[in-house]
Order: sequence, then structure tokens, then C-alpha cells
Amino acid sequence: MHVNCEQAERIIDAAIAKARETGVPSCVAVVDSGANLKSFRRMDDAWVGSIDVAIKKAKTACFFAMPSGELGKLSQPGKPLYSIEHSNEGLITFPGGLPIVDADGVLVGAIGVSGGTVDNDHAVAQSGVAVIGVCDVPKHPWRT
Amino acid sequence: MHVNCEQAERIIDAAIAKARETGVPSCVAVVDSGANLKSFRRMDDAWVGSIDVAIKKAKTACFFAMPSGELGKLSQPGKPLYSIEHSNEGLITFPGGLPIVDADGVLVGAIGVSGGTVDNDHAVAQSGVAVIGVCDVPKHPWRT
Amino acid sequence: MHVNCEQAERIIDAAIAKARETGVPSCVAVVDSGANLKSFRRMDDAWVGSIDVAIKKAKTACFFAMPSGELGKLSQPGKPLYSIEHSNEGLITFPGGLPIVDADGVLVGAIGVSGGTVDNDHAVAQSGVAVIGVCDVPKHPWRT
Amino acid sequence: MHVNCEQAERIIDAAIAKARETGVPSCVAVVDSGANLKSFRRMDDAWVGSIDVAIKKAKTACFFAMPSGELGKLSQPGKPLYSIEHSNEGLITFPGGLPIVDADGVLVGAIGVSGGTVDNDHAVAQSGVAVIGVCDVPKHPWRT
Repeated sequence: MHVNCEQAERIIDAAIAKARETGVPSCVAVVDSGANLKSFRRMDDAWVGSIDVAIKKAKTACFFAMPSGELGKLSQPGKPLYSIEHSNEGLITFPGGLPIVDADGVLVGAIGVSGGTVDNDHAVAQSGVAVIGVCDVPKHPWRT
Repeated sequence: MHVNCEQAERIIDAAIAKARETGVPSCVAVVDSGANLKSFRRMDDAWVGSIDVAIKKAKTACFFAMPSGELGKLSQPGKPLYSIEHSNEGLITFPGGLPIVDADGVLVGAIGVSGGTVDNDHAVAQSGVAVIGVCDVPKHPWRT
Repeated sequence: MHVNCEQAERIIDAAIAKARETGVPSCVAVVDSGANLKSFRRMDDAWVGSIDVAIKKAKTACFFAMPSGELGKLSQPGKPLYSIEHSNEGLITFPGGLPIVDADGVLVGAIGVSGGTVDNDHAVAQSGVAVIGVCDVPKHPWRT
Repeated sequence: MHVNCEQAERIIDAAIAKARETGVPSCVAVVDSGANLKSFRRMDDAWVGSIDVAIKKAKTACFFAMPSGELGKLSQPGKPLYSIEHSNEGLITFPGGLPIVDADGVLVGAIGVSGGTVDNDHAVAQSGVAVIGVCDVPKHPWRT
């Protein structure tokens, strides 16, 4: 199952509304459950460097079906997944990327936000996810 | 000068309306005048391989301020720009990428479309450009 | 807005004058506000490895509109942006990259210097920036 | 032996003077005899896509110690070096890249120009080379 185009646009609309409310020009990316880009928008005056960060956060959250920041806890020096960022052509493992899980507990895609502090990016991403589902992936088996 | 976010969304809306009219699920990308991604949308059922093709068409049209297909005429075997596709991390030099030029003759960005035949992609891209300008870049000097 | 060619050359002249004064053969790069290379110079006897470091420092400072070293404080293990270096085809997040902001508070480009200690690189970069502006980006909204 | 910084700047000055005379905003790159970037300048309004093309032309001319256009004759379909562009992270094999050979017949670097027609780029490159030498590499053995 994949997030569809109409859903992806509504997700980005909601995320950008939240970003605007927080006063932070942001980039927002949505990928489908195959981690392939579905939709992307860069607000005016958002950092150019945030384009790639937002897309990589979305992909990271999808690749491993968990919030990008959760993966980041495991990828610190001395931790089990140290340096996993080198895989998949580059991960971003700090907050701002969230899985999108539908009402049946199926991972249908992910969102990535970059533009401000990681807390702000995380909140903006949550506003996007809430449009169609949650970001909590059920224990295996989950389906893509 | 850059295409702004609101313009980029209207450009993509128009391009997708045209794609829908032609019955071809397509990917549409808009970049600013620095060839950095501004907005992207993938219609449902569009080829996954079209994501990168659409983005590269937009970048190509911006990089050289000409329709991607015009560059392709020059990059054929035996032609002056043979193999230019190896530059800039990969160009796409068949039709579907168009510069976006505003009323003052300034290149403000570019659009890239991938999904169907090159003729269809080109027509869809034209529908997008028409929202805010033209795709004909004035003779040098033009400005970015 | 972009730094223009004549400004970029004067920026590099000043940076190299400073580098010479400090006795450190250096590489100096200037990018425009889209993070695209505008001008570059490698002093004789500068490290070959500094070419890419200088360019990446300039891009990094432009990508996120902040001194490269400020980003580096946030990207350490345990810090909010840990491993952001994996984005944008590789960032350099130690000092030596600075945004270039004009009198209107607009980010017009960035400079990157590599050749000696990070303190020396930072001082050389500052000499370059001072030619046409400052390196302090105003609080959002700033414009590109 | 390498072209030095002062020579590289004079080469670029001469090339840009010629480019200006021909009315074509261009990018000019100079690499040393190790194919490492020595100096680069992008004239205002030159295509953003020409940055990488100019650098790759200079590298190509240095990598194989011949004009980039000569290599291009050999890399056409059916020719001995077909698709050599895939090597060295991407070659550009149409005119505009020239070796720089000093009075002793030693390859000291190369120049690459991109901005207009290949004929114009070639002429601009020749103006640069003429500042310190010629572009004809003597038969082997030549030295780097």
C-alpha cells in the first residue's frame, strides 16, 4: 500500500500550515512505502541544504519504519547501529522523519521535514502524518 | 530571481491537469534558477523511474537555459555536444524539460515532466510553463 | 541575489592576501546563493585535498546560511544534527566556511577556505567576506 | 611541473577577455598536470550547467594530454574509445578543453571552457593557453 497523490498533497499542506504557524520556512517531502519520492515542496526562504535533508529524513523513516530520530539513538558512537548513515546513499538520523501508518497498521509511506530545530521539524512532520494516520508502526509483521 | 512556492504549485497543478487530460500518469518537477528542487509531484500509477527523469529534465533545462530536447539534438553521436549527459551528475536530453522565463525575460526556473511519450511530456511541461511565463530564453545577455 | 564575478574575485584576492600574511598556502572557493561555484583559486603548495574541502565548506555555509563551524557544533555525537554531513553529497562542518550577507541582509553567497588550522581558515574566510558584507545572517525571514 | 597560481590567473584573465569579446558568458577552469583544480571563474550570466562542463573539459584534456575534441572523435559509436566518457567520474569529449604545454614540451596543466558553441569555447580556451605555452603535446615521452 502506498500513500496516494491526493493524500500526499494534504499531508504537505498540513505540514506547511504548521511550519508557517511556527514561523520556520521548511522543506517537506513525502515518500511512498517503497521509499520513492511522492511529493515535495520547499517554502520560500527555506535553506537550500534542507531539500536533501528533508528527502533523506523521509526515506530514512521509511527504510527502517521508525522515526528518523529513533534510528539516530542507535547510530551514535558505541551504539549497535553506529554509522548506518553510510547505507542507502546517505541517511539522516535526527528527528524530522516519521513513518506514515494507516488505520490498518500498514506502513503507507513517510514524511521528512527540514528547516528549523529538530524539535520544530518533528512537530511539523507530526502535523503532516496526523492527516491520514499515525507514526507508530505495529510490531512485526507489518506490511508495506 | 526564483520561481516562488505558490507559483511552483500552480505550475504543477496545471501540468497535472494536462497530464490527466491526456490520460498519462506523470511526474512533474520544478526547480529554481539555481537548479535546486522547488516542488515535485508524482501522480498515482506514474512510473517509479520517472521520478529521477523528471527532476533531471528540469535541472537540464535550467542548467543550459534551453528545452531539454534542444540539447538532445546537439548531443547525438557526431553532433557538437555528444555525451554532455555525463556532466552535472547526469542530464536527460530528450523532450519534457523546459525553462521558465518571466515577463522580463529572466530565467526563474524550469519544469521537468516524465510519464509518457516525449511529445506528451513536452505538452504537459508547456501547460505548466504557460501559467507564469514562456519557455523562450532571450538571446544573451539573459539574467538569472 | 547572487555575488557577482567581480565581487567574487575581490573576495578571493582579499582572502589570499590574508592567507599569504599568515604564511599558509590555501584554497579559496566562492559560491552563489544557490550553492553553485562562482570562483575558485588554489595557492601554490596548498594541499590537493583542500580543493574539495574548500568547495564543500562554501557550499555548507550557503546550504544552511550559517558558518560551517556552527553547524559542526550541532553535528557532534549526541548533538541534534549528528551526521548531517551525509546530506548534500557531503558537508564539511568545521570552521572555514562563512555565509556572505549583503547590506540589505540578503544571503548572496558563501566562501570556503581550506589550507591550515581551522582558526586560520576561519580568519582567512572572514577577510574575504569583509570585502562586500558580513557573515551574520539576520533571523528568519532572510532572503536568497 | 604544474601551472602556478599566478599563471592560472593570467590564463583565465585572457580567456575571459576573449569570451567577453565574443559576447559569450563563459565558465573557465584551469587544472594542474595532476588534473586537480587550480583556478576557476564563472562570468555573470553564464549557464549554471557550464560549471561542471568547463571543469570536466579541463580534466579530460589533462587526463589524456589531448584536446577534449580530439578524444571525442575517438569516442563516437563504432570508434576505438567508444564511451570512454564513463571513466574518471565523467569526461566531456567535445571541444573546449586544451592541454597547456610549456616551452620545454612539458604538460603543465589544462584549460576547460564552457559557455557558447564548441567553436567559441575552443577559441576562448586557445586564448588562455597562449598566455604561457601551446596546446600541442610532443610525442611520448612527455613529462608531467
